[in-house]
This record gives sequence, structure tokens and C-alpha cells, in this order.
Amino acid sequence: MKRRNFIAKSLIYSSGAAILPHLGHAQSLEQTKVRLGFIGVGLRGRNHLEMALYRDDVEVVAICDIDPQAIQIAQKLIADKGRKPAVAYQKGDHDFENLAKRTDIDGVVIATPWEWHVPMALEVMKQGKYAGVEVSATVTLQESWDLVNMYEKTGSHCMILENVCYRRDVMATLNMVRQGMFGSLSHVQCGYQHDLREVKFNDGKQAYGGGVEFGEKGFSEAKWRTQHSIDRNGDLYPTHGLGPVAEMLNINRGNQFAYLTSMASPAIGLHQYIEDKGGKDHPNAKVNFKCGDVVQTMIKCHNGETILITHDTNLPRPYSLGFRVQGTKGIWMDDNKSIYLEGVSAKPHRWEDFKPYQEKYDHPLWKAHAADAENAGHGGIDYFVLRAFIESVKAKVAPPIDVYDAAAWSAISPLSEESIAKGSAPIQIPDFTRGKWKTNKPIFALNDQY
Amino acid sequence: MKRRNFIAKSLIYSSGAAILPHLGHAQSLEQTKVRLGFIGVGLRGRNHLEMALYRDDVEVVAICDIDPQAIQIAQKLIADKGRKPAVAYQKGDHDFENLAKRTDIDGVVIATPWEWHVPMALEVMKQGKYAGVEVSATVTLQESWDLVNMYEKTGSHCMILENVCYRRDVMATLNMVRQGMFGSLSHVQCGYQHDLREVKFNDGKQAYGGGVEFGEKGFSEAKWRTQHSIDRNGDLYPTHGLGPVAEMLNINRGNQFAYLTSMASPAIGLHQYIEDKGGKDHPNAKVNFKCGDVVQTMIKCHNGETILITHDTNLPRPYSLGFRVQGTKGIWMDDNKSIYLEGVSAKPHRWEDFKPYQEKYDHPLWKAHAADAENAGHGGIDYFVLRAFIESVKAKVAPPIDVYDAAAWSAISPLSEESIAKGSAPIQIPDFTRGKWKTNKPIFALNDQY
Ligand SMILES: NC(=O)c1ccc[n+]([C@@H]2O[C@H](COP(=O)([O-])OP(=O)(O)OC[C@H]3O[C@@H](n4cnc5c(N)ncnc54)[C@H](O)[C@@H]3O)[C@@H](O)[C@H]2O)c1
Ligand SMILES: NC(=O)c1ccc[n+]([C@@H]2O[C@H](COP(=O)([O-])OP(=O)(O)OC[C@H]3O[C@@H](n4cnc5c(N)ncnc54)[C@H](O)[C@@H]3O)[C@@H](O)[C@H]2O)c1
Repeated sequence: MKRRNFIAKSLIYSSGAAILPHLGHAQSLEQTKVRLGFIGVGLRGRNHLEMALYRDDVEVVAICDIDPQAIQIAQKLIADKGRKPAVAYQKGDHDFENLAKRTDIDGVVIATPWEWHVPMALEVMKQGKYAGVEVSATVTLQESWDLVNMYEKTGSHCMILENVCYRRDVMATLNMVRQGMFGSLSHVQCGYQHDLREVKFNDGKQAYGGGVEFGEKGFSEAKWRTQHSIDRNGDLYPTHGLGPVAEMLNINRGNQFAYLTSMASPAIGLHQYIEDKGGKDHPNAKVNFKCGDVVQTMIKCHNGETILITHDTNLPRPYSLGFRVQGTKGIWMDDNKSIYLEGVSAKPHRWEDFKPYQEKYDHPLWKAHAADAENAGHGGIDYFVLRAFIESVKAKVAPPIDVYDAAAWSAISPLSEESIAKGSAPIQIPDFTRGKWKTNKPIFALNDQY
Repeated sequence: MKRRNFIAKSLIYSSGAAILPHLGHAQSLEQTKVRLGFIGVGLRGRNHLEMALYRDDVEVVAICDIDPQAIQIAQKLIADKGRKPAVAYQKGDHDFENLAKRTDIDGVVIATPWEWHVPMALEVMKQGKYAGVEVSATVTLQESWDLVNMYEKTGSHCMILENVCYRRDVMATLNMVRQGMFGSLSHVQCGYQHDLREVKFNDGKQAYGGGVEFGEKGFSEAKWRTQHSIDRNGDLYPTHGLGPVAEMLNINRGNQFAYLTSMASPAIGLHQYIEDKGGKDHPNAKVNFKCGDVVQTMIKCHNGETILITHDTNLPRPYSLGFRVQGTKGIWMDDNKSIYLEGVSAKPHRWEDFKPYQEKYDHPLWKAHAADAENAGHGGIDYFVLRAFIESVKAKVAPPIDVYDAAAWSAISPLSEESIAKGSAPIQIPDFTRGKWKTNKPIFALNDQY
């Protein structure tokens, strides 16, 4: 039912676009087409693929996945939209290199397991193409440096596809921050608080969750994501929260992360889940999980502001990215969808509903494209993040979220591991811009294109 | 209007109590009377005094304050209740020593500026009396040790009067924690998030706030509290949040704080306030404030759990102690007054209103005394905390919140300062019980008396 709506709307969009005046000539239409490849067409990659198939200005040239079923489903999505089949790369872990080598591709969307992001992005960039990388972009500090070095060597751009930067309330708040309505920022909070137990243990036999299998026997992210909770203790997924607040704090552009310290609560949630669902004798009940259930990281910024990030994926809890933005003039808080602005809010010391502020300070980008975004997933944010990538490729400019953002935001993950391993010691955060943050100017969402 | 109600109710209570059977004999009434002294009868001390005057089992023997006006108002409160005047000690900073020496006093309530708590408590304990000390109990680590050493030397008890331990929702949650409804606890949060700018700058000329004066020219807490924001950078007031969660985590009784790390946002809120209210040329606009506007402290417990404490008193914001209690079975969150318990809550991944849980798991202490507490301030918590002190004195037993709690909870303040001064370095938290936490059993609110 939902699915049919989705396709119907997308067809309307396609034919509607075809009669826009500036697309009158087939020639000019051809010229503005962005030719994309997709590495990884699992759950997330197919999501991007669908967003791309909405658009008349995108040609889906090639797709790559080691899982033939993923390729098959992706090709069906393509066919369902009346597009010609994509060239498929499915001959093992390194076939993506052949996709990257094609000369008829402008940009590549990478939505594979975390450990594959950087090897793939590097190859794509080396071949002179734009890389759009899912979150987190990197797993290790070295990988963050590798991305930066590759960009500086080749000039090929890399965008971290952090969709939450485009959340409507987040962008309205960014708008208000830029208009000085919060005064000088002092402290912000964010996080990834999402009960992923059904994602980490999923044998694919039930629509949502099912069993307590992971690794080889797992389905989708249970195949690979769970292993990170066995091997690592840190904030495994910092960018959904950090990206948006980094934009508000002008990180890499007038401000910089200075140092952090992290602390982890015990790793008991996943084991409990296995015991509850699979029994004490289930083989997975013997697995030793390393990642603390709640990992908190405090970051000190060069300009003094503090950031608290929470990673909380192993315990039963409602979803929340837990945003909070606080300055000398007021505070916005995600968890109660409220705001308080001194001298603006009706009653002193009382929260106000954020809604009227949302309407009044809606970001120009959202105002301009809300209708298109409406058809997209994740509350429209997926539409915006892919759009920004495509428009950057089209205009041959740096993406609004760039390789330095990818490097710095993702680096919080290995740095949090290091802090925890050292008993919550403070750890310096490398300056991936090598000083350029002092002169770089903010670019994110400053025009209505990206 | 409110005031008249208050007095009327208290008279009803007094006369009502007089006809209770076990108070029939003047003699037995006399025997169970607890004789109290009060050092510091400022805003808070008078609050305690009023709670004490409610009770037929308390005699107010003596009061002490360096401010004659405070003494005068206190005496009027006493007279208004038809009690005989208290002996007044008002001859300078050390006259409290004379109050402490009296032989007709069983316990002393201390509600003075922070830096006076320990000198006063030590004197009271040395003289063989129960000390009830306002929060935070101590300012330095040495003071925490001094309290403990004095208790161990004299056997005189010291209770930190942490009223938030008695908050109704907090106690219901504690009840549920003890019944295992949250599973194994993993992470908790709390804090003191209270816009105190009008308290820190208050010339007493307006009912609430007024001007930007502090120190000598200040009124009430503006006289002394503000100075701490000039001299110290740390969590100046940790116990309102920490006390309640320490009870849930059995700190000092089966569990212990292990280490902490703290981080402070810039100190810009107070200066901004002075500029906004007093102008850029106001003499106080030259004052250099040291205490960061938002100070966050992460504590690791011996049994692995983590605690996040937030101190946030210099920025415009609605009040919140920001409690959050999280275990393998569920989560309670203060800021949206909601709870989620796996398998109990109606819908998976969805918050539920805390109210029905409040009713179902209301703590026995509250059930037994809610009617009396109703007449008291701060939502009844002030009634309960003084009641616990008085009942402990009466029964000649250790108070439910003891000297080790006073020492450990308050110590987070200087330890957070140390961490911040060392660039958020992890700091070991002393074990004030000297190992006794391993065998100590929980006592707080385990009967319906204290
Ligand atoms: N931004 C968001 O909101 C969001 C949401 C979900 C996932 N993600 C991110 O997207 C990425 C993918 O997640 P997912 O949920 O789609 O996982 P998934 O397991 O469903 O998909 C990953 C796909 O990559 C394929 N793959 C693995 N190794 C490969 C290789 N060497 N070459 C080619 N293909 C390979 C797998 O076969 C699979 O189809 C992750 O980085 C994840 O964090 C982001
Ligand atoms: N638990 C709570 O909810 C709560 C609420 C408010 C205050 N407090 C605490 O209570 C204490 C007092 O706060 P307050 O708001 O009443 O402040 P206040 O300034 O109104 O009162 C303090 C009183 O102590 C007196 N004093 C100062 N030095 C003295 C000395 N050497 N001898 C005798 N008296 C002396 C002052 O004259 C003043 O009357 C503080 O520790 C504060 O943190 C707790």
C-alpha cells in the first residue's frame, strides 16, 4: 500500500519535471545529468538508490554488492522506475574497484559496512570521482587522515552523508543559532540513543528482529555491526548527533574540537537480551561484549564550548538523538520538543512548545524543497542529504559537508575508545584541517542549493 | 494570603496531634521531645524552623545567626506558633560555638553559607550532638575527611539534609529499582540545572531578583554564593542530583564511586547578565567569573555503572534536576516525566506517562506521611528530610543519610574542580568508608520511619 503510493508519487514527480521549461531540450537535460554509482545496495544503499531514482537529473550507471540478492532487489527498483538496468559488480569484496574505474561515473554513493567505507572512498577519489560516504565515514584515526590526504592529493571531494544535519528542527535551530537567538553558545548535547538490539541480533526470518543471531548467521547489519560491539568499547556511531551540532559550532570553520574524555557503562544489555530471547544456553550467551551500554563523551572546543555525546544502543529505550543547544540567551531541548528564549518566551523559566519556532524559523532549504522531500524516507532528511551530494557533483564544487567534517566527526569514535581504554583520560583531537579551520568560513546550508 | 493559610494549617496540625492517644500524658510527650538548635536562620534555616514548629515532638531551644534581622524574623515565626522565644546567639561569626555547648540540645540544624557548614558541624559533633547539615555539606576534600574523622572519634552522627532524596517521583523510582523493575542499572543522570542569576545577583530591593549586586551589597545567597562562582570552576552543587541516584546505586553500601572526570563550558552567562541588567559600565561587569556555565561530571562506580551530573546555573533555562535511570529492563526520564519498561510498557519503543507508575509504586514513606508533608514546602521533601533527622535523633540511631554520604556526595565538588584544572583528567574518588562500603547494607528509606 505504502509502497504503491511511493512509486506513484515518484512517477508524478518524474513526468512533472520533464515539462519544466529549462529541461525542454533533451541536450541540456543530458548535460545536467549526474552519473552515479552505488557501492553497497543493502538496506541503506537501496534507500539512496530510491532517492536517486526519483530524480530526472540522475543516471544510475552501476551498482556493486557482494550479495547477489541485494543486487537483484536493486535492479528491480531500477526497472520498476522504467530505467535501464545498472551495470552490476558482484564478483567479491574488491569488485568495487572496477566500478570506481569506470569513466562514465561522476560520483559514487558508498553504503557498506563501516570497515569498508574508507578503502572504497579512497579508490573512488583516486579515480577522480566524488565519494559520498555513509556514516560514520571512518573507523580509525589513520582512516580519517587517509581520507584527508587523498583529498589534498587528488582534489576529489568526499562528502559524509550525514542526513541528520538536514533534520527540519535541527536546521530551524541552526537558523536561529546563526541569527544569534541563543546568544553565545556555551554547551550542546546530542547522541545516538537507539535500541538496536533487534538490529544487532536479526536472523532475517521476521520482519523486524527475530532470534539472537549475528555474524555469519545474521541478517543485514547483524552480519557486521554487532562485531564492533564485541571488539570495541567507545562511541561507535557519533556523527548523527555530532554532525548537526558541529555545524552550529562552526567546527572546522572558525572553531575546532580540542580534546575529549569518554566513559562507558558496563556491557550488560546485549548479553541480557540474548539470555532473555535465546536462553542461557544459547551459544551467543557465551560471547563477550566489550562495548559499554551507554558511552558518554565530553568534547571541549577550541572556542570553549562543550559538547556531550551519548551512545546508547544496547538497552530498551525509546529512540532519541537527545539534542540540546544552550547559549547565553536560551536553550532548545529535543527530548521535550521545547525551547526557552529569554525575553522572547512568554513566561520566565517556562518551556515553550518548539512548533511555532519551527514554523517561523524554518530553514530556506526546507521551505524550498519540502514538497519533494515529503516523498522521501527518514522524515525527508535522506532526500536532502543525497540532493546536496548530487547538486555538488553537478556544480563541480565542494560539498557542504566535506572531507574534513568526515574525518573529524568520525574520529570521535576511535578517540573515545582510546579515552575509555586509558581510564577516561583526556585525549587531544587532531586538527585534520592543519590550521585551515582558523580561516575557513562556514558553508553548510548557506544557500538554498546545498 | 498563602502565608495565612500556612499558619492556619499548622495550628490545626498542632492541636490535632495533641489529642492523639500516645501523647495523652504530658510526661511521655516531654520524654519524646527532640530539642533542636538552629545555626543560620536565613531563607533556608527558617524553612527548617517552620517545619520544626509544625511538630509537637520538637522544642526549638536556640537559634543562631550573625544577622539580627534574621534572628528577629525567626523569633516572630516562633512566637506566631505560640512557642516560647528561642535563646538567640548573634554575637559574631563564632557565637555558634556557644549554642553548640548547651546541654539542653539534642541536635542542631545548620543552614549557613557552604564554607561554614563543616566548622559548625564539627563543633556540634564534638559536643555530642546530632548535626543536620545543609547541602553541599563540605567544600573541600579535607572537610569531607574532617567530618568522617569527627564521627569516628566521637560517635556523633551527621546527616546531610538532602531533601531531593525524598522527592516523591524519585522515591517511587527507587522503589521500582529495588524491585528490579529496571533490571541491572547501567547508567544514571542527574544534575542541578537552575537559573540562579537572580539569586546570585540580588540587592533585596525587589521580591524576586533585582539589580546585579552581590557580596557585601548582596541579599541572602548573593552575599556569599556568588563568590564561589568567582573563585572556583567545578560542580558547585552536586548533591541534589547525586544524593538520590547514589541511593539507587547503593553508594557506600555495596558500591562506591571510583573515579570522575569533569568538563566546563565557558563562563559567559553571569557577565552577560550583568551587562544586560546593569550596563557595560557597571562595576560588576569587570568581575572575572571562573565557574563554567555548564559543568559536566562523569562518575564511574566500582560496580561499573556510570553517573552523569550536570551543574548549570548561569544561563537562562527552566528548572530541572534532569534525572534519568537506566537499566537492562527500562528507563525513567525526568525531563519528559516518562518511563519505558520492556514488556511492561504498552507499546514497544514508546514512552509512557510516569503518573500511573507513581501511583502504583509510591514509596511507603510517602503513603504514610503524604498528608503531613502536603503542608510543607518544596513539594513535601523538606518535611521528609527534617522528619528523618528528628526521628533519628529521637530513636538515637544513625540517620538514613549519614556522614559518609555527606562526605562522598559533597566531595564531587572539589574533585570536579581538580579534574577541570587538570584539563579533564580522571581523578580517583577517595573511599571515605575506608572499605566498609563492601559490607555496609543499604538503609535509606527501608522502613516507614526514616
Ligand atoms: N544515515 C543513516 O540514517 C543510516 C541508516 C542506516 C545505515 N546507515 C549506514 O549505511 C551503511 C550500510 O548500512 P546498511 O543498514 O545498509 O547495512 P546492510 O548490511 O543492510 O548493507 C550493507 C551492504 O554492503 C554490502 N557489502 C559488504 N561488503 C561489501 C563489499 N566489499 N563490496 C560491496 N558490497 C559489500 C553487503 O552485502 C550489504 O548488502 C552503514 O555505514 C550504516 O552505518 C546509515
Ligand atoms: N536543600 C535545599 O533545597 C536548599 C535550599 C536553599 C538553600 N540551601 C542551603 O542552605 C544553606 C543556606 O542557604 P540560604 O538560602 O538560607 O542562604 P541565606 O544567605 O539566606 O542564609 C544563610 C544565613 O547564615 C547566616 N550566617 C552566615 N554566617 C554565619 C555564622 N558564622 N554564624 C551564624 N550564622 C551565619 C547568614 O546571616 C544568613 O542568615 C546553604 O548551604 C544552601 O546551599 C538548601
